[in-house]
Amino acid sequence: MKIITISREFGSGGRELGKRLAEHLGFNYFDREIINAIAEKGNLDAQYVEDVLDKGLYRDIPITFAHSIHTVPMITHTPHNVIYYQQKILRELPEKGDCVIVGRNADVILHDLDPLKMFVYADMDAKVLRCQHRAPEGERLTDKQMKKQIKRIDRARHRTHSYMSDIPWGDKRGYDLCVNTTNISIKEVSELLADYSTHWFEHRETKRG
Amino acid sequence: MKIITISREFGSGGRELGKRLAEHLGFNYFDREIINAIAEKGNLDAQYVEDVLDKGLYRDIPITFAHSIHTVPMITHTPHNVIYYQQKILRELPEKGDCVIVGRNADVILHDLDPLKMFVYADMDAKVLRCQHRAPEGERLTDKQMKKQIKRIDRARHRTHSYMSDIPWGDKRGYDLCVNTTNISIKEVSELLADYSTHWFEHRETKRG
Repeated sequence: MKIITISREFGSGGRELGKRLAEHLGFNYFDREIINAIAEKGNLDAQYVEDVLDKGLYRDIPITFAHSIHTVPMITHTPHNVIYYQQKILRELPEKGDCVIVGRNADVILHDLDPLKMFVYADMDAKVLRCQHRAPEGERLTDKQMKKQIKRIDRARHRTHSYMSDIPWGDKRGYDLCVNTTNISIKEVSELLADYSTHWFEHRETKRG
Repeated sequence: MKIITISREFGSGGRELGKRLAEHLGFNYFDREIINAIAEKGNLDAQYVEDVLDKGLYRDIPITFAHSIHTVPMITHTPHNVIYYQQKILRELPEKGDCVIVGRNADVILHDLDPLKMFVYADMDAKVLRCQHRAPEGERLTDKQMKKQIKRIDRARHRTHSYMSDIPWGDKRGYDLCVNTTNISIKEVSELLADYSTHWFEHRETKRG
């Protein structure tokens, strides 16, 4: 079973890199759909799941809802629910075939399945530029606002990761390859990284004997 | 002018990777010979240069020696001499052609020449194993001693680097690609990294227009 996990700084192009890598390798690709799957499985609000996992908004939300036979008077959405269901969903993904998973702390959650762990990052200026390019017309932030948003989101990713691992998010020791996208074309380089991945999995098999 | 700088944790195989990369690309390769060149140029003791640059032994050594006409009563070897001559020597290397330079803070010293900056690292167990393999018979340290030595040398590299750069040694922000050699064959992967390098330099040219 071959799994590639892509952790990435916001705006570094990690998602594009993951998608292209999956295409080159013929692997399944998972990213945001995981949010909906978690919400469905845990009977949680999708927006809340996204807030916790993507934005690091760690508030407890008390919600009252009816449950089949019993009426449960008060169920509290907690970040721990979200993280619990995230783990369940993530562990089901590789059963569907070789895959690339972007984000969601898959590197930690699937650690025992020996994934190839990549981290994608870039200089701040390059990230701001990339975010500005993909922002819809009329929804542009100033560069200063964008920089602030990038930092906030990455702080959240750092925090979520710290609940599960001793190695900090983005610390190279936790990854097999860290790719700085500041001075590369992701389109062109993804094919080279696919070759790298193929080698990496072959070598893993050799070591397993 | 194409320059690849390889910074590396002790025992990670960075030197082997650099050598093979240079072979694949047909680039010049520089590593330990830089020590002798610095010593010669600066009229410094080679062992002292190595102590400062490789082992981070930052002591001032007072040495008396005769200088052509004048007799200089007391010349002090200082780490600053070494770093000064290191910079001079390193800046001469690329004039000889495209090159791979391992260590010597070439990433920082040649920063303005837009080198492709790689960092090579590995898990501690893998580094200990690699060091034990290459240790001459009869000169084996225990694994514990080896681990201590690895840490000591890397601390020294960290320290030397910190005299020249705000970005700490080994911090991925200072590099274009960080390669964990724990689960790869350096021999096999160096060809892939040569392709990566070729792409990287092509892209650099495109950006320069």
